Amino acid sequence: MTASTSAKRSPEGGRRVVTVALTPPSLKDNTADADRLMQGLKQQLDTDEIRIDLGLLKRIPASLRQWDYGARCLLFKERSGHLLLGMNDPREPRPMAGLAVDLGTTRVVLQLIDLADGRVLADDAFDNPQIAVAPDVLARIHHSETAAGLAEMQAMVVEDLNRALAAMCGRRGLSIKDVYLVTVAGNTAMSHLFMGLPPRWIIREPYIPAVNSPDLFLAAELGVRIHPRGRILVFPNVGSYFGGDLISGILFSGMNEIEETAILVDVGTNAEVILGNRDWLIACAGAAGPALESGVARMGMMAAPGVIDTVTIDPETRRFRYETIGGLPPRGICGSGIIDLAAHLFLSGMLDIRGKLVPEKCGGNLSTVDGMHHIVVVPATDSATGSPLMMSQADIDSLIRSKAAMYTILETITLSVGMTPRDLNLFYVAGTFGSFIKPRSAITIGMIPDLPMASYKALGNSSLGGAAMALTLADPMAEMARIRDRITYIELNVNQELMNRFSAAKFLPHTEPSLFPSVHPWG
Amino acid sequence: MTASTSAKRSPEGGRRVVTVALTPPSLKDNTADADRLMQGLKQQLDTDEIRIDLGLLKRIPASLRQWDYGARCLLFKERSGHLLLGMNDPREPRPMAGLAVDLGTTRVVLQLIDLADGRVLADDAFDNPQIAVAPDVLARIHHSETAAGLAEMQAMVVEDLNRALAAMCGRRGLSIKDVYLVTVAGNTAMSHLFMGLPPRWIIREPYIPAVNSPDLFLAAELGVRIHPRGRILVFPNVGSYFGGDLISGILFSGMNEIEETAILVDVGTNAEVILGNRDWLIACAGAAGPALESGVARMGMMAAPGVIDTVTIDPETRRFRYETIGGLPPRGICGSGIIDLAAHLFLSGMLDIRGKLVPEKCGGNLSTVDGMHHIVVVPATDSATGSPLMMSQADIDSLIRSKAAMYTILETITLSVGMTPRDLNLFYVAGTFGSFIKPRSAITIGMIPDLPMASYKALGNSSLGGAAMALTLADPMAEMARIRDRITYIELNVNQELMNRFSAAKFLPHTEPSLFPSVHPWG
Repeated sequence: MTASTSAKRSPEGGRRVVTVALTPPSLKDNTADADRLMQGLKQQLDTDEIRIDLGLLKRIPASLRQWDYGARCLLFKERSGHLLLGMNDPREPRPMAGLAVDLGTTRVVLQLIDLADGRVLADDAFDNPQIAVAPDVLARIHHSETAAGLAEMQAMVVEDLNRALAAMCGRRGLSIKDVYLVTVAGNTAMSHLFMGLPPRWIIREPYIPAVNSPDLFLAAELGVRIHPRGRILVFPNVGSYFGGDLISGILFSGMNEIEETAILVDVGTNAEVILGNRDWLIACAGAAGPALESGVARMGMMAAPGVIDTVTIDPETRRFRYETIGGLPPRGICGSGIIDLAAHLFLSGMLDIRGKLVPEKCGGNLSTVDGMHHIVVVPATDSATGSPLMMSQADIDSLIRSKAAMYTILETITLSVGMTPRDLNLFYVAGTFGSFIKPRSAITIGMIPDLPMASYKALGNSSLGGAAMALTLADPMAEMARIRDRITYIELNVNQELMNRFSAAKFLPHTEPSLFPSVHPWG
Repeated sequence: MTASTSAKRSPEGGRRVVTVALTPPSLKDNTADADRLMQGLKQQLDTDEIRIDLGLLKRIPASLRQWDYGARCLLFKERSGHLLLGMNDPREPRPMAGLAVDLGTTRVVLQLIDLADGRVLADDAFDNPQIAVAPDVLARIHHSETAAGLAEMQAMVVEDLNRALAAMCGRRGLSIKDVYLVTVAGNTAMSHLFMGLPPRWIIREPYIPAVNSPDLFLAAELGVRIHPRGRILVFPNVGSYFGGDLISGILFSGMNEIEETAILVDVGTNAEVILGNRDWLIACAGAAGPALESGVARMGMMAAPGVIDTVTIDPETRRFRYETIGGLPPRGICGSGIIDLAAHLFLSGMLDIRGKLVPEKCGGNLSTVDGMHHIVVVPATDSATGSPLMMSQADIDSLIRSKAAMYTILETITLSVGMTPRDLNLFYVAGTFGSFIKPRSAITIGMIPDLPMASYKALGNSSLGGAAMALTLADPMAEMARIRDRITYIELNVNQELMNRFSAAKFLPHTEPSLFPSVHPWG
């Protein structure tokens, strides 16, 4: 799952950027300039209503005369009618651009898009600067309970966004005034902080966001420096714990438009799962019950140069082989490497079905530190850190809980609609983590169902992908609303039945091996 | 026609200001605050779409909790959907107010309205300060051809408006933040200057306004100081020579909603005439041809204390009687006084059917200055100025041309739809001038058709009246658009036929006395 494949639909750019050639006014046809322009646009757009900002209106008479009554117009479909966002000389070669923002809790990822054809003009990313004030969401919300704290949080991310955008524009020879639209996909808390909305009640029972479906805002109102009349569209959320980043991911996957029931798993700070098709969507989040807490998420370690992302054990020699990012000397193991490692430890018999290290099978790779078994992946001599790279029994136990939690969620959500995980034919994995894990290893440890490899589709950064798509869709607000309104958010009911499923999933691959027919330990 | 009667419809205030009582959120119903409010409003409003500004959105969570999930909401119906303009504690006694503005070339008249019930809270008026830079529209447009000149013109009127509004609010114990909506009715040039739109092409062939149907703007964008999220609605125009003041007048008269064909005559800087009913509207302006130029308008002299507004001649003694505004010593004669005077001069035989003074009938009231006959209304001894108040033959000739122009317009527009002026049963007279002229005198000189007195309805300041109505209508933009789109603007075709009608109308009351059967000179 290294190559990022996606269900991305082709942008309908032809309907967003429209070039009109108007008949110049005469004594016989003395329609006002703005109204003449709107008539021309309405002929091409099948719309009754086009709104024009005052600032743009002021420029229309001189511009139309200067451009011989031709104009390249950028339109945005609002809830009803269209908004004329920008206007250019049809001969102007510079594109009209939009910015897609994946507003992550830890990382903010940007993509500059040509609004006419959906082409990517530039990419960039930066760490969410709010981390400096408060690393986790809860602390950021507490910091934002005063108006000053909220303003500070909002300004921090906007300032870095402005800086990054200006740099991206600069690299492409564009001005920030060539950027007319920003789409922002983030979780509910991040979206609220970005909009400067009080997040206080998100984290207090009964967990109420300020807004679920925000309107289109002037970018200037949020301090975002693009074209002075540019707009910002923040993805709607379903509730405090199901945010716009997931709506964006669903949009990007296209699962909401196909007949077949698909599942989308997004592992970020939380693990979120969405099951559905063009008729219905069911969602739940992994941090839903105490048994699953600190579960799936912990595996999502950062991939970086020198980090081991692939581990295999040679069936003959039982020796470890690994690959590091960038081929540098190893200095750690990221999530995908850990899953690989666990899978191969199990296949080789070094790990039993309960997830416990088997000393007699581990041989020289076993080390005991403070009375706890560790498996040594890289000896100190080969390690970039000078210390051996190891995984403790406690780390493995944690991984087992994580994978069991994941499988339990998948089983519970599919059972809720009368399916089982193995009935799925389309399994989208989103997030950085999803892009790197190998489905074969994840199946081996029983983390994900035993489906044919072709069923697994890595979406990459689906939150960013959906935000970029929204920039060129004919009616993004309606599409977002359609997704949002169709989602049924279910809280995982942590009852005995779920705990039984969780216990069964804590084995490798599962207490019921027939669920994983493709997994064959080397024995 | 001293009392101002109007066809004003009752405001639909109940649909503009809405009080909701929401169910507080719970774990079972964790809809976001803003979305909960919108749901509550949608139940009362039959709307699919409610837009909320970011600034208001920020306040919603705290306000709803503070107000126990009740709210008094001010909504404005935009082209489609509603805009939530403001929100108050339902227990707040202060009204939510709107400002109606009649943006005249010479005078700006204001009315502060309670948006809940249409009640007038305060009135005010000031001279259009642009007069100081340029007295007439043409000179103001020339002054506004540079960006700086336009900004200066715009700021002048806005500053005075802000000052007057603050004073009005102060008199009622209100804050300018209690004002959420401003409606502005002015001619096309005044509206453009107010919006800061380049008026340059209004006065150049083929006479193209920047916009016919402007959108709703943020008041702050125009520098108008009301509630920071308050909006301004500028009445649409039909073209460079048919402005929003007339659309407003039609709205106020209600002629666009009745089955019977009515006529509306508005005498301001120009004389405009609108003929029609609920199915069609035809309009033309008096300044349409060289023959009619400097015609009707000249009569519109300002009424002021000490100005003669009523003149009669005693049939027995042939002595002049007059009344002045405020009963002060006379210092001039306003339009209605001049029409009275001409009517009585004609009835008494002092003026012949050609409109010439008859010396042998005028007796001691005749004076000859610089070889021209004058009729003395007030001798120097009784005049507040120390000089006699007179009307020269040239003044009378001018009046005759004016009244003939008016009648010619009325005849031409009614003939264009196969009617004659005497077929009309409803004759609305708008404008200050219209409020003071006596239909009996105007009929006597053949200025308006010989209809029963009950047919004449003085609307007073119909431009202000329509602007005030728009503040409380359920869907003012749609209603304005319906009027605007139904108007056929006809240019008066100055051909031989029209000139013949004009010549016939230059007699008193007309070459064809049977058109004015109620006019009987004392003879």
